[in-house]
Amino acid sequence: MGSTESLGVGIIGLGVVGGGIIDILNDRRDYFKSVRGIDLTVQKIAVRDVSKPRSAGVSSDLLTQNARDVIDHPDVQIVIEVMGGLDPAREYVLAALESGKDVVTANKALLAEHGDELFEAASTHNAGLAFEASVCGGIPIVRSIAQGLPANHVTSLFGILNGTTNYILTKMTDEGGNYADILKQAQDLGYAEADPTMDVDGTDAVQKLSILCRLAFGHSIPYRKMLCEGIEQVSPIDIVFARDLGYTIKLLGIAKPQSGGLEARVHPALVPTDTLLANIKNEFNAIEIVGNAAGPQVYTGKGAGASPTASAVVSDLLYQAELRIAGRQRINRQLVDVEAAEPLATEDIETSYYCRFTVQDTPGVLAHIANIFATHNISIARVIQEDRSETEGGSVPLIMTTHDAREKSMSAAREEIDALDVVTEASQIIRIERLND
Amino acid sequence: MGSTESLGVGIIGLGVVGGGIIDILNDRRDYFKSVRGIDLTVQKIAVRDVSKPRSAGVSSDLLTQNARDVIDHPDVQIVIEVMGGLDPAREYVLAALESGKDVVTANKALLAEHGDELFEAASTHNAGLAFEASVCGGIPIVRSIAQGLPANHVTSLFGILNGTTNYILTKMTDEGGNYADILKQAQDLGYAEADPTMDVDGTDAVQKLSILCRLAFGHSIPYRKMLCEGIEQVSPIDIVFARDLGYTIKLLGIAKPQSGGLEARVHPALVPTDTLLANIKNEFNAIEIVGNAAGPQVYTGKGAGASPTASAVVSDLLYQAELRIAGRQRINRQLVDVEAAEPLATEDIETSYYCRFTVQDTPGVLAHIANIFATHNISIARVIQEDRSETEGGSVPLIMTTHDAREKSMSAAREEIDALDVVTEASQIIRIERLND
Repeated sequence: MGSTESLGVGIIGLGVVGGGIIDILNDRRDYFKSVRGIDLTVQKIAVRDVSKPRSAGVSSDLLTQNARDVIDHPDVQIVIEVMGGLDPAREYVLAALESGKDVVTANKALLAEHGDELFEAASTHNAGLAFEASVCGGIPIVRSIAQGLPANHVTSLFGILNGTTNYILTKMTDEGGNYADILKQAQDLGYAEADPTMDVDGTDAVQKLSILCRLAFGHSIPYRKMLCEGIEQVSPIDIVFARDLGYTIKLLGIAKPQSGGLEARVHPALVPTDTLLANIKNEFNAIEIVGNAAGPQVYTGKGAGASPTASAVVSDLLYQAELRIAGRQRINRQLVDVEAAEPLATEDIETSYYCRFTVQDTPGVLAHIANIFATHNISIARVIQEDRSETEGGSVPLIMTTHDAREKSMSAAREEIDALDVVTEASQIIRIERLND
Repeated sequence: MGSTESLGVGIIGLGVVGGGIIDILNDRRDYFKSVRGIDLTVQKIAVRDVSKPRSAGVSSDLLTQNARDVIDHPDVQIVIEVMGGLDPAREYVLAALESGKDVVTANKALLAEHGDELFEAASTHNAGLAFEASVCGGIPIVRSIAQGLPANHVTSLFGILNGTTNYILTKMTDEGGNYADILKQAQDLGYAEADPTMDVDGTDAVQKLSILCRLAFGHSIPYRKMLCEGIEQVSPIDIVFARDLGYTIKLLGIAKPQSGGLEARVHPALVPTDTLLANIKNEFNAIEIVGNAAGPQVYTGKGAGASPTASAVVSDLLYQAELRIAGRQRINRQLVDVEAAEPLATEDIETSYYCRFTVQDTPGVLAHIANIFATHNISIARVIQEDRSETEGGSVPLIMTTHDAREKSMSAAREEIDALDVVTEASQIIRIERLND
């Protein structure tokens, strides 16, 4: 029924994601052709080493070591970039867009770093630049926000945006154990990279958050200017105390429009244990987004992995193909017409806090600390001070949670508290996010 | 930046949803114009009574009592149908499609009943027929499946598709109380209609499920042929026993491809308490969908209400406007090229069961029932038989859960058990769904 149009596809990079894309294209080719009316053929694939053995689905005629052979191929209309990294990925993507080819990319670092330039180039050359796979691959969140929520002002966004850290925090919470041991386990199971730095220090999550800020709020905020803290400092004892207080610790990406600017930050946070986000486990990602008309929604699924990422790439590929065949403008203007912005200053953040002070078990400590909080106008919500008479004279944890306070006040209070003689270690302060209560 | 195109919109029906649409169009008009490049103007609105007072956003010049004035208006390219009901909604939607106008509808009953005819008409006349608002309005699930998952074979779909019943079951679970009292409460709060029949008997959910089956599996299955049971028979005691066994009772819509056909059914089900679906509360809806490549995803949000529904309608409106401007085919072929099918026969369903037998508290009862199960090859998983010596001779509940068994075997066993002298009431059998374990 209806006509079928043919389009050529080029792929740069043939690692596990590239291989997954080839598998899906083989699997879905008939469906795309007969039902969607689009015949997609892979014309060229750039790889690092053409002599390396490949799976049965890949003909060696298709391979080249020169990415330009893909970009300049006359029968390639859509280029898939799954090589990763900033350079030369940026150069290749720009070259493809400048020759009016559509690009589908899974490269979040590239978009977080060079988004302004790339979306502008796409717009100038009426080329598509699709990036569903760059943020939470297994969840069609880009499509949901761009096309499912245009009637809404997004009033807040909370996300578990990194699978590795969520896996580690889940194991620490459900099975106990410390960060280092569980990281090792996660590496053995393939849930963490050999060099996990970008995951555990929050960089991966904050890069995704910056892409979501462009999409949901029309703001271009350099991710390096966003508050970003990783999970390295979260200790098993904090997880236990958080649970006693009714919270679960998650690494959250948070974005909320405020009068002073867009609040955009990534850090470990205590979230109420009975919320959906607190119950997103292991390597799963989730995004809670509130639209003024649609209300709150939560989306969850696998954030990474070859197969979910390839699924997102192929969805984008089909979508770009449909737009190309229609001759339609292939980049949403709202991705280009964004406001260059700075995030709300960290000192202006207002939230409540979980504090773990390590103090000498002597009389008067609580009064000292409570006085400092009072001076800075920070109101205490709860205190846990356990009777540890057997440790008399030693160090004990003193837990406090606060009502909403300014980050600026909390920093100042913390500095004074850490300077007290009776405080024996640097204090642990973790923000509490009540989500949408 | 870029050009702006103008399109005229007609609306049939101006109840709370229609009013919400007008509000959003007023609110978002500048954004749609300047960023999305589309200027949408409401040209005509059909209402039942033009003399009724309207809110400030609606000029009386726009109103008519004749829907044909909307459909035939020369400046209307897109018709929004939010009058509800089957007739004359069907006639109006068909007339609009036949004159090549796009239709956006929130009318699930209409699509469930006349989907084949309407999608076919849309395809024939190259008109759009958008229906995001018809299934879980506050969740962009139609867009997510159609455009976010084309690379996937959907292997299962579980949904909490009705807000009224989820509200009632949540209250019964969290606060106790029986069905009738809580239904009354829900009516007072506006979560249930004055006549709640279509909600509580599962009709609303099974109509939505049939639309989802078209979208996710390419099957057109008359919803009346699907197994459909409501929540009227769920009693407080079942909710308590389910909790003791680690389950929560939800009204689920379920669709799964099986070798014998698509399994599609709506009924109360026990779901494990630690799953996300078990924790979807009150009037919220949720859909868990598994794609072979993307893996499992859960989407949740408000299913109904004026504002979420209007949000979905306006998203569809903008989407149809973009397609119309592009001159692109405005109906996805996969909605038309569907397989007319029957659901898998109920007797072939295989699942596990929760059974509550009301029996005389006399020796040998358990053996009787266990024997009948054995005869039908049904394997018992757990038994709860409480010591109730004080009720000796009276009736007591006997709870059993089973391993997977055929519905046919279970029906036969139930019939024999209910015929036993020692069984004093009709047995309660509720299916257990383990979701994706």
